Amino acid sequence: MGMPSTELEFVRLDGRRREALFQQIYESIRQSILAGKLKPGVRLPSSRDLTQQWGVSRTTVVAAIDRLVAEGYLHSVRGSGTFVSDEMSEECLCASVPWTPPGANESQDNPAESRNVLRTSEVSDFGAELMSIDKVNADTAAPEAFCPGEPATDAFPMDVWSKIVRGVWKRVRPVDLTYGEPAGQLPLRRSIASYLQRHRGVRCEPRQVMIVGGTQQGVDLVSRLLVSPGDRVLFENPGYVSARDAIEKAAGRIVCMPVDEHGACVSAGTALTPQAKLAYVTPSHQYPIGATMPIERRLELLAWASDSKAWILEDDYDSEYRYGQQPIPAMQGLDASGRVIYVGSFSKVVFPALGLGYVIVPPQLVEVFENALRLASRPGSQIDQLVLSEFIREGHFGRHLRRMRRIHAQRRLAFVEGVRSLLSDRLTIIGSQAGLHCAALLKSKKSDVRIVRELGQAGITARALSEYYHPSTPTKDRLKGLVFGFACVAPAQIKKGLAKVAEVVC
Amino acid sequence: MGMPSTELEFVRLDGRRREALFQQIYESIRQSILAGKLKPGVRLPSSRDLTQQWGVSRTTVVAAIDRLVAEGYLHSVRGSGTFVSDEMSEECLCASVPWTPPGANESQDNPAESRNVLRTSEVSDFGAELMSIDKVNADTAAPEAFCPGEPATDAFPMDVWSKIVRGVWKRVRPVDLTYGEPAGQLPLRRSIASYLQRHRGVRCEPRQVMIVGGTQQGVDLVSRLLVSPGDRVLFENPGYVSARDAIEKAAGRIVCMPVDEHGACVSAGTALTPQAKLAYVTPSHQYPIGATMPIERRLELLAWASDSKAWILEDDYDSEYRYGQQPIPAMQGLDASGRVIYVGSFSKVVFPALGLGYVIVPPQLVEVFENALRLASRPGSQIDQLVLSEFIREGHFGRHLRRMRRIHAQRRLAFVEGVRSLLSDRLTIIGSQAGLHCAALLKSKKSDVRIVRELGQAGITARALSEYYHPSTPTKDRLKGLVFGFACVAPAQIKKGLAKVAEVVC
Repeated sequence: MGMPSTELEFVRLDGRRREALFQQIYESIRQSILAGKLKPGVRLPSSRDLTQQWGVSRTTVVAAIDRLVAEGYLHSVRGSGTFVSDEMSEECLCASVPWTPPGANESQDNPAESRNVLRTSEVSDFGAELMSIDKVNADTAAPEAFCPGEPATDAFPMDVWSKIVRGVWKRVRPVDLTYGEPAGQLPLRRSIASYLQRHRGVRCEPRQVMIVGGTQQGVDLVSRLLVSPGDRVLFENPGYVSARDAIEKAAGRIVCMPVDEHGACVSAGTALTPQAKLAYVTPSHQYPIGATMPIERRLELLAWASDSKAWILEDDYDSEYRYGQQPIPAMQGLDASGRVIYVGSFSKVVFPALGLGYVIVPPQLVEVFENALRLASRPGSQIDQLVLSEFIREGHFGRHLRRMRRIHAQRRLAFVEGVRSLLSDRLTIIGSQAGLHCAALLKSKKSDVRIVRELGQAGITARALSEYYHPSTPTKDRLKGLVFGFACVAPAQIKKGLAKVAEVVC
Repeated sequence: MGMPSTELEFVRLDGRRREALFQQIYESIRQSILAGKLKPGVRLPSSRDLTQQWGVSRTTVVAAIDRLVAEGYLHSVRGSGTFVSDEMSEECLCASVPWTPPGANESQDNPAESRNVLRTSEVSDFGAELMSIDKVNADTAAPEAFCPGEPATDAFPMDVWSKIVRGVWKRVRPVDLTYGEPAGQLPLRRSIASYLQRHRGVRCEPRQVMIVGGTQQGVDLVSRLLVSPGDRVLFENPGYVSARDAIEKAAGRIVCMPVDEHGACVSAGTALTPQAKLAYVTPSHQYPIGATMPIERRLELLAWASDSKAWILEDDYDSEYRYGQQPIPAMQGLDASGRVIYVGSFSKVVFPALGLGYVIVPPQLVEVFENALRLASRPGSQIDQLVLSEFIREGHFGRHLRRMRRIHAQRRLAFVEGVRSLLSDRLTIIGSQAGLHCAALLKSKKSDVRIVRELGQAGITARALSEYYHPSTPTKDRLKGLVFGFACVAPAQIKKGLAKVAEVVC
């Protein structure tokens, strides 16, 4: 009582402002404490005095003071009054900034931004690897001619899908809105197991199917669970850059497995590093070359994995798309020793924005993967999983796939014929009649990276074949060529696009 | 020509079977090669002979043979005929198994399963940690009285949500079905930034908002990017077990920060390990104790992080739910040095099955997080993100939140009153009036783990407070109590459930 109280004359109340008077009082006092205007230990006027001073109800004043006491800005001493907390040191207060009031400019400069430059010592080894990542294969917002890896989303039966969505939402019960199984909805896992058994020759039970957010998350999960820092991983060279980056940046030491017209050269690869923990392959349709791996190499790789207790990661990213012949069964179905992990995605066969894929793991890995999904991830929307499961079960998926195969085959044909008529003196198409992209070798000696840059200036997206190689590969050992995605481009646009390509490539 | 050809009499064709004749021929030959019945080097009869022998069209025979050649099972020598490939060694063949024909029993025993026992040497360090994980806090399929962490999904406005879903699907363009931004849809990130600024005092721009699959994935991502193996992480003790496990199993060495009635004891924690890389805290509502961290501790933690270039992970998991007073602004808004990473989820405020949450990172971490999301993950369904963004923007989210706050407040009241009238001699409720769960201390000396087991037998879910402690904590230093979730239980069921609790707890 003996100590004089401060007057809090800085509190300006405005009945027209959007925030309640309570909020205005609370914020004014809080901000003044944080800014050091109200010093620790200072006594506040009584709530009765403040009520008079501000002309607001006593309840409002008491509520604001109570909250500041609850949050520790003030403390009350029975019979003595309310004081600014003296447990906050000056030092601490200076490190903090005043709260931005509601409605303040959202895009104001953050003062921290200009001051703070991130140092590698502040992040993890993985974080440090990601600080200087190569962005060559970043996704573009809208796919255009000839962006690889994008399916014909314009052909997706949105009406069928959204009708199923409506139906599912009509039947949804509160329990369907809860967390659900970490490894994904069982109806979807059943649909996938049965689809893969019939169409891909994959042997698995539903519990071996782990739902993930797509191939990328699947590869990352496999590499995290099976590859420790420093472990060697056999990887196709040239190969799928994002998968290789995911493995290499996280932990693994990449050992390059050469690729020829039959895909990965298995014996050359395993000879380089018999102790590899994992081998990543795309046997159905080597990415980006387009080769199909023949049975003898498949068996050889399986025998190696079985002997050396290593794992095979079979990425079957676009195997559903083969034109002119039926899809080739997956390696997984030939695996008697439980060494193959099979990764697939619905991005190429339903639509990428769905963000759903799967990893089929051998029985002995089920528990480890389930635990990882529970702790480190979540398999996306449970409702979407029910929708997708119904889309498959009711035959829409099969129908859509057959239709997409026709559409993509037409687009591939338009592309190949276009190249033949306009560019046959400059480009040689390689690889099998499959997938969503086409690799073509350059006949000239010009840098494919430079051509890709020039194509970009002409409004055409393509990738340089030489950039799919591991950075350790000498330039002279790299094939020079261009990788084009034809699936997301209508035939008329393919023709137009190739005309532009013909102007640039020489 | 000189070499006799085998007769292929094992091929049995059946026009009534579902598979095409082509498929039957292909599979019969393939299986016979894999099983060693057709030896390497053996010559096949000519396609003309086979056409006659099987009574099918020559096109069918040629298609099947061509495919087997393409896959490497057979090879053709011009003028000599077609031979079983001799590049497959007997050894390799024995390692493989015959393909399971379509329609075979899906749930047949996998022969690999019984033989293969996983050894820690076959997986990564992370994988080995996950082989023997404690499943105490596993999600149950359907939440029941009194499962913590589950919101009242029965109160979710499914009609409003599914109407927005319908509307979004009507407007969806093909470009919306493509991959989209790795860090999530910008409209959603804008909605979240503006919501958090207004309601949680968070200061951020939309580009600092990373969309993830929920809190669990957010915590995992933060720990992977900032914590290297062996780095120390300050963690509340008792604390949120799944987050602690995610950090500890992946890399970090947990240093336990004691918790009292004001939440984490910051100075005690930082004194234990000044060099920690990260501190995980739940300042709004300590999990599981329920304390709110006062301002002086918040400022102290911020000053420590700023001085030692460490990070603070603020998990604001259920901060929207405070009953009787307004939510307390987040620590993130007080951070002038860009050291706070803020994690939130829509699981508690929309519904868990949505699988969407967010991480707000300081500006200097934006690029690293974007790269990680691109390489290692995908932020779930892009379409759901558009739906959620509209749900927020059109005010449904705010309305729903206010309604949920009322419902949860009623349920909390029913729970607290029930405990008071039935169990006040045995349980003391602690923590603030907030969240979806309530912790209560046991007055007796009986083991809380044993009581939880007995409650389970009586059909009641609860968690033992002592089990939220790090395993290194001596038993005598652990509070004994029960943690109940009241939010997912209707008031009438709360009463019934507590009657059962009263029978068990003594």
